[in-house]
Amino acid sequence: MPGRSCPLARRYSRKRQKRSLNDYDFELDRVLSWLRDEGAKRVLIEAPEGLKQKIVAEVLPALSSYTVFMSSKPFHGACEVGDEEAGSLGVDHVIHFGHLQMVARRFPALYVPAYYDFDPSPSFAELDILLAKGGRNIAVAASVQYLRALKPISEHLSEKGFNVMVENGKRTKAPAQILGCDYFALTSLAGKADQFLIVTAGDFHALGAVFALNRELLQLDPYSLSWKKLDPTALRSWVIGESYAWTKLEDAAKVGVIVGTEPGQRFLWEAEQAAAELRRSGKHVDIISASNLDPAQLSALPYDVLILAACPRLPYDDADSFSKPVVSVFSVLFGRPLGLRGWLNGNDLTVKSKQSSGIVEQGFSVKRVEKYSTVRDPVVQAHGSPLPYRFKRLSKC
Amino acid sequence: MPGRSCPLARRYSRKRQKRSLNDYDFELDRVLSWLRDEGAKRVLIEAPEGLKQKIVAEVLPALSSYTVFMSSKPFHGACEVGDEEAGSLGVDHVIHFGHLQMVARRFPALYVPAYYDFDPSPSFAELDILLAKGGRNIAVAASVQYLRALKPISEHLSEKGFNVMVENGKRTKAPAQILGCDYFALTSLAGKADQFLIVTAGDFHALGAVFALNRELLQLDPYSLSWKKLDPTALRSWVIGESYAWTKLEDAAKVGVIVGTEPGQRFLWEAEQAAAELRRSGKHVDIISASNLDPAQLSALPYDVLILAACPRLPYDDADSFSKPVVSVFSVLFGRPLGLRGWLNGNDLTVKSKQSSGIVEQGFSVKRVEKYSTVRDPVVQAHGSPLPYRFKRLSKC
Repeated sequence: MPGRSCPLARRYSRKRQKRSLNDYDFELDRVLSWLRDEGAKRVLIEAPEGLKQKIVAEVLPALSSYTVFMSSKPFHGACEVGDEEAGSLGVDHVIHFGHLQMVARRFPALYVPAYYDFDPSPSFAELDILLAKGGRNIAVAASVQYLRALKPISEHLSEKGFNVMVENGKRTKAPAQILGCDYFALTSLAGKADQFLIVTAGDFHALGAVFALNRELLQLDPYSLSWKKLDPTALRSWVIGESYAWTKLEDAAKVGVIVGTEPGQRFLWEAEQAAAELRRSGKHVDIISASNLDPAQLSALPYDVLILAACPRLPYDDADSFSKPVVSVFSVLFGRPLGLRGWLNGNDLTVKSKQSSGIVEQGFSVKRVEKYSTVRDPVVQAHGSPLPYRFKRLSKC
Repeated sequence: MPGRSCPLARRYSRKRQKRSLNDYDFELDRVLSWLRDEGAKRVLIEAPEGLKQKIVAEVLPALSSYTVFMSSKPFHGACEVGDEEAGSLGVDHVIHFGHLQMVARRFPALYVPAYYDFDPSPSFAELDILLAKGGRNIAVAASVQYLRALKPISEHLSEKGFNVMVENGKRTKAPAQILGCDYFALTSLAGKADQFLIVTAGDFHALGAVFALNRELLQLDPYSLSWKKLDPTALRSWVIGESYAWTKLEDAAKVGVIVGTEPGQRFLWEAEQAAAELRRSGKHVDIISASNLDPAQLSALPYDVLILAACPRLPYDDADSFSKPVVSVFSVLFGRPLGLRGWLNGNDLTVKSKQSSGIVEQGFSVKRVEKYSTVRDPVVQAHGSPLPYRFKRLSKC
């Protein structure tokens, strides 16, 4: 039977075939039985902004026998948790919608990914044409909501004689899952797969995947059911944006290093290393902590350039929200712009590890090694930035 | 010697007479000796938005022998703490600028009020004229930054033969101190003082004081050194705003109760009581928790009206930031608009206390009594709102 050997076949099969298509699966049965089995009384609901309206309409009414609090936190990713609110509210259980668990929790928490159920088969004819000219080894991945679609897609590819390849990420829970900050499910197949295929909505995960891979890939949009070919030229604004900020960093006298305090965004070791490196270059550096990252507020602080050691995507996707030049902490640690790619690929840092802050990161972190990297970045080289870059030593103010 | 008996004389005398006037006193000597005595290593700095720039410029450079993190949280009041960030960053000590301590902390914390030193004497001629027609008993108060000015003002008043009256607040640390949510230093003198005098900048504390007292008072602006006479007509937008929202609440089918989770803004018992009361009226009610209150984001939730059980001033000062009608949780509990005044005066609730959430509030709370209040609000009566108000029972959806 075609596709039977696909590793995704059983994992992402929809158990309740009666569920309506083109909708999110909030798994109410699982939620209710978990709360009952756990003897829950006071429950905090966490959900990303895009799902909050539907959760309020479809989930909260079913939980009327519990004292329920819906958190207003944005929960951009599994990196953000509502433990502080849960503690403040005397909650005993947490339900987190929209992600799979990434970081340790202080409360019993059930993660419900809110899989989006849809039938991708109308897109297969287009897919066949797009894949026809390439090799037979196809790496597939998806952001969490669309993982279930990988089953019918993989079955179709197997039927057509393609070899479907699936890998795990590092910060992820599920095979073939990608995050805004984890594309190892794709990059670890870079030497083996001929073509790369992802299922995800919008630009966020797609641009990250192209950036991490630094090569062409195909994206299926689950809502329009159309395929899109993406290549690294889509990242022009990232390259130009951070290269510009980098030149500003060279001349900056005062630098603010912003460290996120959400558990999955807390690049504390990296922030302290970057601050030390920049201070060695004679700059005045302060470290600013941020639980809630407000670009306007952070830009108002009296620094020439901001180094962002929080959500790794912030210096790229949200550079325009800041009125100050912003540089990724990974770029400082790798000693050149677009350092995020090095981190996304698990490369060694160019900055020596001299001391640890003593704080154990709950996520994962760049390797803390004693050797310098020889990695060269083709995108940066194409744009002519000098490599490797060292900070100009300023005279002390 | 005139003014010697003034209770404020010793408390708010400036020890370091050499300090320049018209500046904030960050008490660097006290900060440094506290950090040294405590053996601090990693320090979190907390400061309200208005002081952050000066703290970065004047305080952080003096702390270069410590690993310092400057929190980007806004710290609107002593009600907000950075304990979650402190824990996330592995900090051992906290310095909080701009307030006196209100709530318990999880870390050793030094509160530095950042007193603003200025000479109020150029304003005394105007003050004498303004006070001339009233009685001799003068209640004085100030928001924390300007408490030191009460000493020379009180000395001047004593010299002129006035009787200076000083009281304590309930959430405050210092005599004669007012907060945005605590005017007991003034209201507890309502039956005794003839005239009321406050020193504070801007409208925030001044409007709150007029609202709590519901009578005329004099405000000295420390920057312009001019006196302003304020009376309850200044609160017209508060009265009209919440009265309008109240009529919307009457017809609302879906209500969101927003409960703050910052320790001094967590009116959890009140939120749960209000939710229960509104549900008894047949409305659908959800409780939304908010550590960071974003009016635009909260307004986007699918509710007809929002009940705010966070910073008590939010439904009044920031009503315009919400695109939905907002009502104070205290108004729901008192059964009429402008319920905040009842809370600010420690009045009994109209809603019966039936159960407690089991969470101990770290601030103080309305009295949890079993009797109904007979309080009538003259401002609301003047505007013709029906009193006491009961919610119309809606048919179940």
